[in-house]
Amino acid sequence: MTKGPLSGIKVLDLTAVVVGPSCTLTLAEQGAEIIKLEAPEGDLLRKLGGPAPSPDMSPKFIHFNRGKQSIAVDLKTAAGKAVLLRLAEQADVLVTNMRGAALARLGITWEALKPRNPRLVFCVIAGFGKRGRYHDSPAYDTIIQGMSGFAAALGRVLGEPRFAPFVLCDHITGIIASQAITAALFARERSGEGQEIEVPMYESMAHFVLTEHMFRRTFDKAGPTGDPRVMNPDAKPIPTKDGYIAVSANTDAQAFAFFEAIGRPELREDPRFNSVGARFRNVDAYFTLRAEALRTRTTAEWAVEFRKREIPAMPFNTIEGLLEDPHLWEVGLLREERHPTEGPMTGLGRPVTFSAAGPDELKLAPRLSEDARVVLAKAGYSEAEIDSLLGSRAVLPPP
Amino acid sequence: MTKGPLSGIKVLDLTAVVVGPSCTLTLAEQGAEIIKLEAPEGDLLRKLGGPAPSPDMSPKFIHFNRGKQSIAVDLKTAAGKAVLLRLAEQADVLVTNMRGAALARLGITWEALKPRNPRLVFCVIAGFGKRGRYHDSPAYDTIIQGMSGFAAALGRVLGEPRFAPFVLCDHITGIIASQAITAALFARERSGEGQEIEVPMYESMAHFVLTEHMFRRTFDKAGPTGDPRVMNPDAKPIPTKDGYIAVSANTDAQAFAFFEAIGRPELREDPRFNSVGARFRNVDAYFTLRAEALRTRTTAEWAVEFRKREIPAMPFNTIEGLLEDPHLWEVGLLREERHPTEGPMTGLGRPVTFSAAGPDELKLAPRLSEDARVVLAKAGYSEAEIDSLLGSRAVLPPP
Repeated sequence: MTKGPLSGIKVLDLTAVVVGPSCTLTLAEQGAEIIKLEAPEGDLLRKLGGPAPSPDMSPKFIHFNRGKQSIAVDLKTAAGKAVLLRLAEQADVLVTNMRGAALARLGITWEALKPRNPRLVFCVIAGFGKRGRYHDSPAYDTIIQGMSGFAAALGRVLGEPRFAPFVLCDHITGIIASQAITAALFARERSGEGQEIEVPMYESMAHFVLTEHMFRRTFDKAGPTGDPRVMNPDAKPIPTKDGYIAVSANTDAQAFAFFEAIGRPELREDPRFNSVGARFRNVDAYFTLRAEALRTRTTAEWAVEFRKREIPAMPFNTIEGLLEDPHLWEVGLLREERHPTEGPMTGLGRPVTFSAAGPDELKLAPRLSEDARVVLAKAGYSEAEIDSLLGSRAVLPPP
Repeated sequence: MTKGPLSGIKVLDLTAVVVGPSCTLTLAEQGAEIIKLEAPEGDLLRKLGGPAPSPDMSPKFIHFNRGKQSIAVDLKTAAGKAVLLRLAEQADVLVTNMRGAALARLGITWEALKPRNPRLVFCVIAGFGKRGRYHDSPAYDTIIQGMSGFAAALGRVLGEPRFAPFVLCDHITGIIASQAITAALFARERSGEGQEIEVPMYESMAHFVLTEHMFRRTFDKAGPTGDPRVMNPDAKPIPTKDGYIAVSANTDAQAFAFFEAIGRPELREDPRFNSVGARFRNVDAYFTLRAEALRTRTTAEWAVEFRKREIPAMPFNTIEGLLEDPHLWEVGLLREERHPTEGPMTGLGRPVTFSAAGPDELKLAPRLSEDARVVLAKAGYSEAEIDSLLGSRAVLPPP
């Protein structure tokens, strides 16, 4: 049993907030060693992600940064820049969401690094791809939600555009970047060579939106966009006597079983509801009768009833409810942990299981520069050099 | 230049609708050979994903299945089952979202396949992980949106829970699965051995939601969940004279530049707005004045103004607007293509760029069983055997 499929891989992580940390969290969960190089003031998410016992260990930071080592380096100093370059020369992967100009200033470009570390996988998570006119434009999550059609899709349903209540485009693009990096690592095993990867947020999210919603316009430049099946204003969990439930009774067998479950078996003969096509044409009447029926019993009662009849349905969860779901504790997604400075906490495990890997037992999220000494020693600095770096504040001393 | 980092990898794709096709689309875009094994009636998405010139080439199917080969096999026949097993023995990856019982009936389990193909990466995209009580429960996208807290997060903002207007959990879990498969391929290069991967939708999405929204409850079992920064009811693109714009003026420098841009430079001295903390405390007043100011000029005018002053802002796009965005054409995300049966169409390219790979030039989405002969011949069947399989309808003949 290894610690995960990416065991043995060393990632130099020059990212902050969500897009990069979401990427390197996946790599960490799969056994990669992550060296998170922070600015002396720390990843903004330390303070921006909600209150915690310590002022710079926000819950959002804690969850996105488990399994990582932190070293805070002042890249405005020559000694700090030299540390960055040495770590980059020794890494398998360098991933960053810094802007191109900042990277060039630091000498952190693929062109500069390739001669020194030709096996490096160099990944830039950018707002916009190099070949397009927006390349230098700023990209924040809400800007990309607004540009990529996410806000527009919600607007179709709600009457006015709105952002999804997540750092959604950052979070998804981070996962996409983790896949691209892993693919380049695979290719390197065969070719012996690293490469540069560009993961542009806007293009990644436009791809996400348009695969689903280009719709008729794919074939017809005047045709409608937007898949009406998922843009139905009634696409909601359905209220019960005491909560909500999500039901997917789409096939005839499921719909007819549903009619039995609500005590209306005669509806299977009703021309409005007796086929997939009929129910689609009479979707308002179908949804109304469904809503009226479900209001009469509790979520738990319906769940039992639907399960018995093999009707796909599961209870709706609030976010608090998720934390009390026994399934999530059984599979180890939720776990009681104790953080060295933050005390008892609820942690998150790796959702994916690999048969050749043990369970993930990652160290919890690091305090700022907590691992500075270990990282520098592993990089080949002597004790005296380390003391000098920490003393000069080119590297922030561990807390 | 290769066709992509996953060139040389053969994937047997036993998935349908969105969760699996989203996974194998990523693998296809990176050069893997995808054999999409469909039921004789075809992937449900062929008909469910909107109208197209042909009745079974829906736009959603087209976009999620480019770069794949189709072979339709009747797995109820012994000959069909034998084809499936032979393809599985020859594949590098087998990925499926079929339920456990169906897989066991077909002999498609890791236990059964491992002795015949120990290098196989065997990936099951499940609704719920094996170790938890929901393991056999049905999982559809809306059920997972309802269970995982996505619908609840929207409910916090909107007053009632609602599904996001995307096949969101399928789509994201598919991307997660593509990363997990790629990681197992990487590990195989070093260990020589395949393995089984389980990618559970519920756990994957609960992880997605809780990293962002466990919030105070991480440390305090009575604390609030939900990050208020992204759950603000005013988190919307802002109306201009003729459309909307997304602005991210968060730092003092950005906010003060914004005050200049709207002709109110004195606001930087206003105690309600003169620091990040002050603007956060007076967020309603800040949002109101921002909304009033932006209504006075067009989106294009504001975009120029903000760019000049280095204020992060980009225009809001409708879904139609995306299709007219010159940037997306310049980078090759959007492209004019001609499908052999569907005619001229707008296609989607790979959003991610790999320096060691050429541009992706994938064949467009296949008609049902279009590649049956080629796939069988490559698998080692003789011409006579192929004719017999196609004649017996164990394999559907190409159209």
